[in-house]
Amino acid sequence: MKKVILNLAVSLDGFIEGPNGEVDWCIMEEDMHFDAFIESIDTIFYGRVSYDAWGNFQPDENTSPAEKAMWQGIHAKHKFVFSKQDRTAEKATFIADDIVSKVTAIKQENGKDIWLYGGAGLIKTFINLGLIDIYKISVHPVALGSGKPLFEALKGRVGLILTGTRVFKSGVVELTYEPEKQLIANS
Amino acid sequence: MKKVILNLAVSLDGFIEGPNGEVDWCIMEEDMHFDAFIESIDTIFYGRVSYDAWGNFQPDENTSPAEKAMWQGIHAKHKFVFSKQDRTAEKATFIADDIVSKVTAIKQENGKDIWLYGGAGLIKTFINLGLIDIYKISVHPVALGSGKPLFEALKGRVGLILTGTRVFKSGVVELTYEPEKQLIANS
Repeated sequence: MKKVILNLAVSLDGFIEGPNGEVDWCIMEEDMHFDAFIESIDTIFYGRVSYDAWGNFQPDENTSPAEKAMWQGIHAKHKFVFSKQDRTAEKATFIADDIVSKVTAIKQENGKDIWLYGGAGLIKTFINLGLIDIYKISVHPVALGSGKPLFEALKGRVGLILTGTRVFKSGVVELTYEPEKQLIANS
Repeated sequence: MKKVILNLAVSLDGFIEGPNGEVDWCIMEEDMHFDAFIESIDTIFYGRVSYDAWGNFQPDENTSPAEKAMWQGIHAKHKFVFSKQDRTAEKATFIADDIVSKVTAIKQENGKDIWLYGGAGLIKTFINLGLIDIYKISVHPVALGSGKPLFEALKGRVGLILTGTRVFKSGVVELTYEPEKQLIANS
């Protein structure tokens, strides 16, 4: 079964953006092998705002070949956009309702895993519905002091099981978790 | 020179307490060797509220021998309380002003390191004054969804250098950092 993977960068004090939307503190290193992550998924879930911002993003000509290849890889995935707007798009499928049953159906298709891209509202919906299978949180070596929190107010605590850690030269530490209940449900 | 060490537990989403002050998610394991940390310090810095709550705390008779020993160890330290109140105490020295010069003088005394105990207001003051030498943040495997943030609104970003990680059986990951500027200043 395909897994829904949340893969996010966070500051040590739990923010995904600075107070003015800053993400310039996010580090992308070769030894993170983000290309391997992209290779491990075949589907991306976007919220509507994230899709409009990044779903068809084209890097400009000054972009490095590695980053161009990354965007090419991203744009080759199946894309689903969760939105109350009744829209269609050439390269994405819009989902407006019945999230649990539709996501469950997508997860049962053959293939690779699913990247839950965000934004914050969609992540919150997925957490509250118990739809995230793997959390990959890259803790960055900076305290922002204020900003946009990792998770918007959840309806309750989410217990997690640490399943992996990776430490990078830059001081980023990637923590991988599975939610407690799903581990129990699958065992 | 003595170092000021912040040693705190935090949820994955950056809270040190739940929305109602809950700290029941904090894990204390034998393999964390908290006793070795207590052994490595000879001084504790408290805010006034933290001191009144914990500075003279006596565990009740049902407490485990290990925890009783921990409290005995804690109460054997030199204690300083940072407070605008002009108070004296038998077993603690109150500091009301000139924080930077007084802390600098304490750091230059011989001996072991200093535990910056908290609370949040004192931690914020120490961060903003650049007085913390080591951050030890134990990321717990839980998302609380809301609560008291790790750091209260800081006056700016604090860049950190990762100097160590420890992964515990419980899924707690201890991240140790030094502030960027102090590293540069000391080098």
